[in-house]
Amino acid sequence: MRESRRSPLIGNTGIVSGLVLRIGQCAFAAASVGFMVSSPGFYSNTAFCYLIASMGLQMLWSFFGLAYMDDYALSRKRDLQNPVLFSVLVVGDWVTDMLSLTIVCSSAGVIVFYEKDIKFCKQHDYVDNPCIRFVISVALAFITWVLIAITSHVMFWTLASV
Amino acid sequence: MRESRRSPLIGNTGIVSGLVLRIGQCAFAAASVGFMVSSPGFYSNTAFCYLIASMGLQMLWSFFGLAYMDDYALSRKRDLQNPVLFSVLVVGDWVTDMLSLTIVCSSAGVIVFYEKDIKFCKQHDYVDNPCIRFVISVALAFITWVLIAITSHVMFWTLASV
Repeated sequence: MRESRRSPLIGNTGIVSGLVLRIGQCAFAAASVGFMVSSPGFYSNTAFCYLIASMGLQMLWSFFGLAYMDDYALSRKRDLQNPVLFSVLVVGDWVTDMLSLTIVCSSAGVIVFYEKDIKFCKQHDYVDNPCIRFVISVALAFITWVLIAITSHVMFWTLASV
Repeated sequence: MRESRRSPLIGNTGIVSGLVLRIGQCAFAAASVGFMVSSPGFYSNTAFCYLIASMGLQMLWSFFGLAYMDDYALSRKRDLQNPVLFSVLVVGDWVTDMLSLTIVCSSAGVIVFYEKDIKFCKQHDYVDNPCIRFVISVALAFITWVLIAITSHVMFWTLASV
């Protein structure tokens, strides 16, 4: 792991940009859950329930696990990149990355179905239309996934290049 | 690119397992398109139409582009892994990989919505039930994605480790 210790990539664990990415993942996941929970009738759709579960898991992984670890590494000026720990992080990031992407796409598929195929969104007037909140929630979940994907690819690249 | 020339990873371009993976991607994508096109009423669903488009693109990329290239490299015993070409292949594989996964998940989300939330599948009897063909088509598309993901990760790993 010598090369990665000398010049860690942007977004890697143990440097400031890595910590920012983790906190961003957590914040966007929380906002996504908030918008989905506050939209009326979300519980009658399986994909939206899984979206809440997936974003909740992402919050736990990003914040309690890794932002804490990043913060610890930064404050003590210690490098936590030992090979075993690093492999566990890569696998964990990859799992949450794939999980988030699949759930976001499923939810987006259902929203397109609502919008284009059964015209569900046009049946409601502007005030009590849940579609707007569904769309915002899925958009925030997508941003969360983009941030996880950046972290995940940086970690995978680092693991492959050592 | 010296190391990858000496010992290419399983599934890499220019070796037999790479050719098998490419032909497998093409075959499963074709089967997925066949099942979807033959199911009644697929055209009223946007996600299923995009699934056909995505799997069609995958067939073009896997078969006409890369299986041909693999076959050429194998028959002439030539190594086509120059850095520029290899980077183009990695980017192309990554794009088709992400495209396939997103469309497969969207379609799967719609099928879960049909099955669990609006009980669409139980409204039809066994003979003219389109849900079975939808499910088989999406399952075949998922297998296609697994094969692309293997190829894509092997290529990315090779690019990162040189």
